[in-house]
Amino acid sequence: MIKPQIPKGFRDFLPHTMALRKRVIGIMTDIFECFGFEPLDTPCLEYAETLEGKYGEEGDKLIYKFRDRGERNVALRYDLTIPLSRVAAMYPELPKPFKRYQIAPVWRADKPQKGRYREFYQCDIDIIGTGSSYADGELLVITSRVLQKLGFTSFLMRINNRKVLNALAEAIGIQGNAIGAFLRCLDKLDKAGPEAVLKEMQTTAGLTHQGLDSVSRHILDERSDFDTVAGLIESLPEGRQGLQELEIMIRTLRDHGVDETLFKRDITLARGLDYYTGPVFETVVREPRIGSITGGGRYDDLIGLFSKQPIPATGTSFGLERIVAVMDELGMMAGVRAPVRVFLPLFDESLMPDTMRVAAMLRDAGFTTEVYYQADKLKKQMAYAAARGFALTVIIGPDEARTATATLKYMDSGEQMVLGLSDLPGAVREYGVRYAV
Amino acid sequence: MIKPQIPKGFRDFLPHTMALRKRVIGIMTDIFECFGFEPLDTPCLEYAETLEGKYGEEGDKLIYKFRDRGERNVALRYDLTIPLSRVAAMYPELPKPFKRYQIAPVWRADKPQKGRYREFYQCDIDIIGTGSSYADGELLVITSRVLQKLGFTSFLMRINNRKVLNALAEAIGIQGNAIGAFLRCLDKLDKAGPEAVLKEMQTTAGLTHQGLDSVSRHILDERSDFDTVAGLIESLPEGRQGLQELEIMIRTLRDHGVDETLFKRDITLARGLDYYTGPVFETVVREPRIGSITGGGRYDDLIGLFSKQPIPATGTSFGLERIVAVMDELGMMAGVRAPVRVFLPLFDESLMPDTMRVAAMLRDAGFTTEVYYQADKLKKQMAYAAARGFALTVIIGPDEARTATATLKYMDSGEQMVLGLSDLPGAVREYGVRYAV
Repeated sequence: MIKPQIPKGFRDFLPHTMALRKRVIGIMTDIFECFGFEPLDTPCLEYAETLEGKYGEEGDKLIYKFRDRGERNVALRYDLTIPLSRVAAMYPELPKPFKRYQIAPVWRADKPQKGRYREFYQCDIDIIGTGSSYADGELLVITSRVLQKLGFTSFLMRINNRKVLNALAEAIGIQGNAIGAFLRCLDKLDKAGPEAVLKEMQTTAGLTHQGLDSVSRHILDERSDFDTVAGLIESLPEGRQGLQELEIMIRTLRDHGVDETLFKRDITLARGLDYYTGPVFETVVREPRIGSITGGGRYDDLIGLFSKQPIPATGTSFGLERIVAVMDELGMMAGVRAPVRVFLPLFDESLMPDTMRVAAMLRDAGFTTEVYYQADKLKKQMAYAAARGFALTVIIGPDEARTATATLKYMDSGEQMVLGLSDLPGAVREYGVRYAV
Repeated sequence: MIKPQIPKGFRDFLPHTMALRKRVIGIMTDIFECFGFEPLDTPCLEYAETLEGKYGEEGDKLIYKFRDRGERNVALRYDLTIPLSRVAAMYPELPKPFKRYQIAPVWRADKPQKGRYREFYQCDIDIIGTGSSYADGELLVITSRVLQKLGFTSFLMRINNRKVLNALAEAIGIQGNAIGAFLRCLDKLDKAGPEAVLKEMQTTAGLTHQGLDSVSRHILDERSDFDTVAGLIESLPEGRQGLQELEIMIRTLRDHGVDETLFKRDITLARGLDYYTGPVFETVVREPRIGSITGGGRYDDLIGLFSKQPIPATGTSFGLERIVAVMDELGMMAGVRAPVRVFLPLFDESLMPDTMRVAAMLRDAGFTTEVYYQADKLKKQMAYAAARGFALTVIIGPDEARTATATLKYMDSGEQMVLGLSDLPGAVREYGVRYAV
């Protein structure tokens, strides 16, 4: 006998969880499409060289790589952004801007822990072929629409810009490779705290005392505000450009009527990935505190790795796992009723034809309908119906079969009544309306 | 520069193809759920030992296997049936019958050729925990409902039973291991033809001249009918059991009003997999001749490989790739209109706020709406709208912005008119009704 088990960090999704996931994905899809995004799917397996060297040293180690039977080096996709960049380069005929969404699993050979899996879904929207900051702004408008539609009321979209951060680094005397180290340190602020970040900036980014003092005052101090930082970098061309991009994004949010409490410019937001070139953003849920549930940014140089001509691009990713976990935990799906579901027990083997015909009639009327396959004891069959959560039971016994009637039983109240077969679909529909299911 | 490419046998699905695939999957899902099936998802990666030894010698060679970083032997799933069997054994608490559907990719390191891929989708429905042949019959009812809803009018569900085949083998003197070889030969009939099958039966299944003669007359002869075969095996217990199961399935189809021309008992149907124990079935499309597009059967002993107690099970699989290819080729999706989509060019950078507000209004009214992000030449923007297939264009120029109006342009006729903003959603809706989009 083979022990039934799955590798650590991987999961089965049983029907209850699948229903939640499908609902969240359905809401996202509707909104993405409403904004003109179209679906794309890419292979789960890519050539290893397509993925390698794109996710930083740490990320690269987490790629699932192997040699296939033809000795090709292949890898399971690590995210949806690199495959999209490969697609953008491979099909130059796609009309631009190319706006696509993709909702699909990715794999990372990470240490599994609570909320971190080796296989998990990403839900990405990206806009390829425009450098306009309106595109970045629209991604945030969509983010707010999705989260509100899902029922989140207290969240914050943090917005920053790599050009602003680069200019700031320049203003406080950080140069060359040290800028990357500086950003990576900054990215750890939420998890490690300001003390640790300052220490690491000193060792890995080589910050001077003066530099550390600037970081302390302008970036890490809770009282410092974005406009003060803006004052420091206005005179630098890259700084001015970054501030302008931010400005357009903020305006886009306002023109779409997104509530002012839902977004904020935040100089401490760096985002970990190396490839961002301009706007960066993420969403944190304030209540409950679960960390970021969306994140993204502009990556104007990435597609150039696969193509002779660079193509500007921006995108954001929703973390399905965290979103579903929180919604389940907080009962945010409680209001979501399943469609009316009707169960037909099998009273007696000889009544199968009558039972199946009634089931067919109910299905034609649009109701999810199930017939039990064996004439087990009625008690056992009803226990199954309860376990599966059926709202209604329709019993076709010998009397019902003879008189072309059915006994309709409400599973919640236990109440039941005998109806003519032609009245049955109407009664089922009425139940649905009455209980708003 | 890295060459943008994907491994052979793998595919990108661009928006046009995705739309077709999503539509087919949507129809399947609706019907599966209407019959009481619930969604399940399992990891793409399983322990290798979970999959090995289940697909026959040939199949086993095609499993994508590798060692992960923790030196575990893992494999990409080869089908959805073995993972489901593992799930059934791993979660004994699932109410039985457990009726699940799963629509997901599988991987096989097969030689790629026209219509055969290394990554492809399966769409499976299975019923776990009942030995009743009504369950097998219901799978065929669902098959016919799905294919008809997709627009297929000329297809044939071929039905047979392994018990009938086993009894027939017994009746014509084939015994022990030779039975398996006999079935594998029979399975090749469609591809190889009767001559080659007879020859192979002689060499690999060790059939005597008398046996070959029986096969010729009762199985391969086009004039032989199922009832003649039934006469040969009625006296054998396994044969009687198999015929009874077939009888119940046929009755289930009739009680559901499935047209008699759509199904047929067929003694030549064997199905390749070793693990089938009773009913087997597949669907072939007659026009055009594309081979089988669904296939399945009962596998009562498979879950026992993972569990101390055997659990009866049956299931069927729809081949998404072939179905979509045929539907695309025959233009069966032509009648499917996209929802109304509205394009707003950006007349001038300064008009972005006005343009975005109109877009937001249209989205709130439920229309897929897209704003162009840059004030490129209007001609370029309109070419983009045409390439993306937008039905309507709404222009917000300086005059429109000043007077709270919009110019609505019909992309097909080129006709246009100026409307008050409050009349715009109504006009867009009316267009949708008029053209039944």
